[in-house]
Amino acid sequence: MKIFKKRDFPVSDIRRFLEPGPVVLVSSAYKGERNIMTMGWHMVMEFVPSLVGCLISSGNHSYRLVSQAKECVINIPTVELAPIVAKIGNCSGAEVDKFKKFKLTAVDAEQVSAPLIAQCYASLECKLVDGSLREQYNVFIFEVVKAHAAPTPKYPRTIHYRGDGMFMVAGRSLNLRQYFRPGML
Amino acid sequence: MKIFKKRDFPVSDIRRFLEPGPVVLVSSAYKGERNIMTMGWHMVMEFVPSLVGCLISSGNHSYRLVSQAKECVINIPTVELAPIVAKIGNCSGAEVDKFKKFKLTAVDAEQVSAPLIAQCYASLECKLVDGSLREQYNVFIFEVVKAHAAPTPKYPRTIHYRGDGMFMVAGRSLNLRQYFRPGML
Repeated sequence: MKIFKKRDFPVSDIRRFLEPGPVVLVSSAYKGERNIMTMGWHMVMEFVPSLVGCLISSGNHSYRLVSQAKECVINIPTVELAPIVAKIGNCSGAEVDKFKKFKLTAVDAEQVSAPLIAQCYASLECKLVDGSLREQYNVFIFEVVKAHAAPTPKYPRTIHYRGDGMFMVAGRSLNLRQYFRPGML
Repeated sequence: MKIFKKRDFPVSDIRRFLEPGPVVLVSSAYKGERNIMTMGWHMVMEFVPSLVGCLISSGNHSYRLVSQAKECVINIPTVELAPIVAKIGNCSGAEVDKFKKFKLTAVDAEQVSAPLIAQCYASLECKLVDGSLREQYNVFIFEVVKAHAAPTPKYPRTIHYRGDGMFMVAGRSLNLRQYFRPGML
């Protein structure tokens, strides 16, 4: 599997990766244990600080790891990883080391304990800044403190979940800049 | 512009429309005033009740309307409406009636005061169930109380924002059911 060579990316611009709604892989680590989960429910919440709301159900093995570590990495996979993304979402970290099982490469992050996944084209290091919605909604509000992204492809073929085992693959690009006010770009 | 003939759709399954991350049109109405805004920051939060978290910035004209009405309709447009979606996001309801300006057809909703947009292929009637995050994060938590969707196309060509005036159009479908455990479908 391809390993993406990533560069630093401004955290205030990470909406570019998350706003189109891709399924992502959340990696976490705590006291020698690590895990990966597939996540589809997330949203950008602010540019500066760079905030992302994520729903991690308490039934997931990662819920405890992320809660204890108060950190995670949001990795964005492309279509080449689609079968692995689906498989990761259908087994539990309580039973397997998903890095080993799916031959994914864990790379040390700079500011958090959770590892980056080398086979994903972008990885966002996140720290929990508000856990007050966790109990009622399973929602974690993270600040993206460091972002890594491959310079190419510029328009990656991310995958988007439609439910019922069906995914949508990111299609063509559409330039609508002509309709934007300068300050809105 | 095409008017979609919609049918009732189970509210517990509306993730199918929102989870892939499309840009949506939020319609609202209060005391004779109405508006439409373009929204890209939202996430599914629960199946039953059917919850959706939405970020509506306090700088938007719709913020006040939605706050006062405590209701809205989330309409999902397809690529045919893309220029209109961008234009709606680049003008203010304080100055224009966007239904009139963009020749969009307002259809009465069943359970909320805000109108459905006939030219969108799906429309979700929403009631505000938790406004406690509005002040800190501009986040509204809505319950989808009624959903309307066109039976075709099954896999609509929604549009997804990448920032900087560039959109991604929903591409091909990928069936990964074989990797799902039965209970996960």
